[in-house]
Amino acid sequence: MSRLSLNQATIRHADLATALRVTREAGIASIGLWREPVDEVGLRKAVLMVADSGLRVSSLCRGGFFTATEPTAWRHALDENRRAIEETAALAEAGAPGSAPVLVLVAGGLPTDVRDLAGARARVAEALGELLADAAGAGVVLAVEPMHPLYAADRGVISTLGQALDLIEDLPSDVVGVALDTFHVWWDPALPAQIARAGDRIASYQVGDWITPFPGDALLSRGMMGDGHIDFPAITSAVLATGYTGDVEVEIFNQEIWESDPATVAARVVKAFGENVGL
Amino acid sequence: MSRLSLNQATIRHADLATALRVTREAGIASIGLWREPVDEVGLRKAVLMVADSGLRVSSLCRGGFFTATEPTAWRHALDENRRAIEETAALAEAGAPGSAPVLVLVAGGLPTDVRDLAGARARVAEALGELLADAAGAGVVLAVEPMHPLYAADRGVISTLGQALDLIEDLPSDVVGVALDTFHVWWDPALPAQIARAGDRIASYQVGDWITPFPGDALLSRGMMGDGHIDFPAITSAVLATGYTGDVEVEIFNQEIWESDPATVAARVVKAFGENVGL
Repeated sequence: MSRLSLNQATIRHADLATALRVTREAGIASIGLWREPVDEVGLRKAVLMVADSGLRVSSLCRGGFFTATEPTAWRHALDENRRAIEETAALAEAGAPGSAPVLVLVAGGLPTDVRDLAGARARVAEALGELLADAAGAGVVLAVEPMHPLYAADRGVISTLGQALDLIEDLPSDVVGVALDTFHVWWDPALPAQIARAGDRIASYQVGDWITPFPGDALLSRGMMGDGHIDFPAITSAVLATGYTGDVEVEIFNQEIWESDPATVAARVVKAFGENVGL
Repeated sequence: MSRLSLNQATIRHADLATALRVTREAGIASIGLWREPVDEVGLRKAVLMVADSGLRVSSLCRGGFFTATEPTAWRHALDENRRAIEETAALAEAGAPGSAPVLVLVAGGLPTDVRDLAGARARVAEALGELLADAAGAGVVLAVEPMHPLYAADRGVISTLGQALDLIEDLPSDVVGVALDTFHVWWDPALPAQIARAGDRIASYQVGDWITPFPGDALLSRGMMGDGHIDFPAITSAVLATGYTGDVEVEIFNQEIWESDPATVAARVVKAFGENVGL
């Protein structure tokens, strides 16, 4: 169980103090943080709390949202990402040894009334170019997350692992990688080949299940491992075969899980991870 | 407007007589039929009704559901598809000149408690092999429809155009092709390249929009062209560049549209098609 990390989104309604405590008390050694609960207490205090927790930090979620066409919104997005890069470095530094200075990037969807998907995808490439020096300077890895095609219109225009790898191919591998989440990529017939191709570019590996019937809210449609259709051992073993040595985050957006007691959720995560993920 | 075809699923609650009448009265020259409303009146009567309507038949929906692992269910699926092949031939023969003997195939999802996606995909290939002689004998084209990855678990394990083309590559092009529906494939970064690769294998081209916010019911999440995010002119022009000369079906599963008067829907379809599809 030593590589299990609890992504804070799984216990969305817990504040940072609660999330750190619940994670530690469940016997989980690592946590994936989100910017909003960090911001609630302020970065300086969050750094002290993380150091005090003894937990590793496996990533910060999330930067990105790069598809704005309006110049002010575009500059604002880059500024936000520069702040997120600084936060990622500070929080990983505060975490226990083995923490990863990884910032997960969600591409962003199509701007309002824009149907130029290729154009939006090109904006993501452009933004990565703009942020490269900042990330390198801070020792942070930008992890581009391919998102399920379900979100191509309104959340993430990078839709497959192959596309994410094409996007980062010419960028330095110590600064830009990919975040691989089973929920987003499990359906892809090219997945085994693209994971093998990814090699050392996998900066984050996240797990969550695809459940049916599909829940009413597309954003809250993820399930606990074992409750759905994903063959975790197959994907995990392909990821491990690339040499991935990082933590494995459990990230689940699900209304019923969010409404449960965070300590209960953390215990369920430990059990489901042990029984299903193949690690 | 001469290539517009109204797929019966867009006016789901109309019986065959109403669907034929509404289509003709809207000035639409072609209809995509579904097996269930044909079955309601019986094939023999349906053939007479279609001949009497003067409409072209652009396809029959649908065969497929090939992923059963249980032998009886597997044989039942093949038998059902053989019946659907006969129906396709009879209905296209009854339609006006330019009718297309095309049977649209939905692959089927993962069997209950099975997580072997590659195995389910292999079953689809096996089924096509079984049905090849029947389709060839009846002069019918089997059109494999890649479905949005949203449906990979419970409806269609063939998820991209590239995957569908790989699947049919070694099968004769006058017997097996693909059905391309914008709703299912619009997000795919490989789409332009794969449409070009498809060449004469596109047996059916269907249009429907991707709308946001994503509706509560995943099966009823399609929108009228122009109401969503899809760049129809770009996809249509790529399809036409392959030499596709068939009808273009409007197929929309949407609760609000289903609850509207069918004649009103047919008129909306004519207008939205003219304004958005790029044909």
